[in-house]
Amino acid sequence: MTRVTSTPLGRGREFDRIRAIAAALGPRAPELGNDCAFIKTGDTTLALTTDVSVEGIHFRREWLSLEEIGWRAAVASLSDLAAAGADPIGVLVALTVPGGEGEPTFTSVMSGVGDAVALAGGTVLGGDLSRGAAISLAVTAVGAAPRPMRRSGAGPGNDVWVTGALGGARAAVAAWNAGREPDPGARARFARPEPRISAGRWLAAHGATAMLDLSDGLAGDAGHLAAASRVTIRIQLERLPCHPAVPAEARAAGEPAPVFAARGGEDYELLVALPPEVLPDAGIALTRIGRVEAGDIGGSVLELGGHQVSLASYDHFA
Amino acid sequence: MTRVTSTPLGRGREFDRIRAIAAALGPRAPELGNDCAFIKTGDTTLALTTDVSVEGIHFRREWLSLEEIGWRAAVASLSDLAAAGADPIGVLVALTVPGGEGEPTFTSVMSGVGDAVALAGGTVLGGDLSRGAAISLAVTAVGAAPRPMRRSGAGPGNDVWVTGALGGARAAVAAWNAGREPDPGARARFARPEPRISAGRWLAAHGATAMLDLSDGLAGDAGHLAAASRVTIRIQLERLPCHPAVPAEARAAGEPAPVFAARGGEDYELLVALPPEVLPDAGIALTRIGRVEAGDIGGSVLELGGHQVSLASYDHFA
Repeated sequence: MTRVTSTPLGRGREFDRIRAIAAALGPRAPELGNDCAFIKTGDTTLALTTDVSVEGIHFRREWLSLEEIGWRAAVASLSDLAAAGADPIGVLVALTVPGGEGEPTFTSVMSGVGDAVALAGGTVLGGDLSRGAAISLAVTAVGAAPRPMRRSGAGPGNDVWVTGALGGARAAVAAWNAGREPDPGARARFARPEPRISAGRWLAAHGATAMLDLSDGLAGDAGHLAAASRVTIRIQLERLPCHPAVPAEARAAGEPAPVFAARGGEDYELLVALPPEVLPDAGIALTRIGRVEAGDIGGSVLELGGHQVSLASYDHFA
Repeated sequence: MTRVTSTPLGRGREFDRIRAIAAALGPRAPELGNDCAFIKTGDTTLALTTDVSVEGIHFRREWLSLEEIGWRAAVASLSDLAAAGADPIGVLVALTVPGGEGEPTFTSVMSGVGDAVALAGGTVLGGDLSRGAAISLAVTAVGAAPRPMRRSGAGPGNDVWVTGALGGARAAVAAWNAGREPDPGARARFARPEPRISAGRWLAAHGATAMLDLSDGLAGDAGHLAAASRVTIRIQLERLPCHPAVPAEARAAGEPAPVFAARGGEDYELLVALPPEVLPDAGIALTRIGRVEAGDIGGSVLELGGHQVSLASYDHFA
């Protein structure tokens, strides 16, 4: 969940739509703007988030098995829990499939959802089924957040880190779109991404000041972190940890590898701001890629070879 | 939310699909089967539910304004909170609209959602937007349930009551399908139903033993209450409170008025089992329509004029 918000957002057409909705809702939606909504009950804060995955928009049926469609949709939501520093409790799923298909489709998709949620330590809490024009899943994830992480809170002098490696999912999509079979590792990043639950928990517990997941691509998401925190985030693209499949696909696309990786959406890695005294645990794959500077320019600055570059973020409406 | 479950369900094709999913998920979905999922944190129990509304399946665009589409979808979920005896906190919304439409559609639909949620005492907590083949909203509602109500728990000797009047929404749809303008009151029941939040809270606090909302029609839903409680529910259809628009539309359909009303889905009234000593508050519109008997026949018995009648429940896949 990143898309209905009254917290400052970075640039982009998709985010213009969100700003319009937030303005229209006004007091009917007073506290939005992070990867998760938070509800405090007693000593516990629950984190809640909704993400929708639509056939033909977020995936194509020929790319994925039905189980993978379910898995991937679940991870889109579980990853937002990770970014909130939350432990998953479970998910609720609204699933539509075309009228001609019956039990086997529902069952296979839900089985993939169940596998991803079980791996993350939760269960399927409930759901709703309907006929529809295409496979569409809205997955709502709920978890417990001991120290709720938001996009706001990054301060000047913080370092900016990213988990894992970027660009794998985009490399798979680029191969499919070119009529080639993707690299198996890249395909796995797209088809069975893993939510960074334990990394998110560790970072929240060890002083992270702001966090989000890279669902729309580093270029756009770094801008959101910067805008929400009212700071400037400066990233050296040379530092980006690129998935091994990126160089070949980047060459085919005529882009430098880190630019290709930074423009890729849906890697479901975490982008986090940490005070410089925090030394990441050796058990978590983290790479320092930039720093937080004073000054609210409404976004981030990406540099490659000492020059500033401008990258469009991934837009589900483009 | 009524549709992924491992609690016994009544008869019907839609429910066969759900049984298959519950069987496939096994321990990955261990505690399903009520209008809401419940999460206990400290002294508070949260109720969560998801419902999906799809253009062409649950509504037609020519019947409703965009705001009404949003309102109605929100109430489908808020009504499940009512049936759980819960007070709404807020909703998360996954909204897809066709690619050619932009901000005005998103904003109008979300405005209707916001109005319904505000009336019920909650706010819009977050959401996700996407392009899709048609308007489709998955609304997840969350609330606090001081005494969580389930479908199971109805005991022999309980009376069975229903809130409000039934059949109004079906009367509107019947008129539209016949090319006529519906009765304005019936149209309002379809376009702007009201979740029975305060009735649900009162009933939960005053000894109700089992409750659900009539989203699929009395015929099917009474069967679910009976199956989940492992009892028989016997209903006298003559007692049904019918919406004023029902008699005329029932005549046009060639059905007795109470049969027409009992087969209608999506009135979002509550069906509740109460011990006989509970006397409903004068401020809540409640009608006693039957009673709970011992014996698990996996459903309910509907009687009209002393004879048992069989009614198909509303099926979103038919």
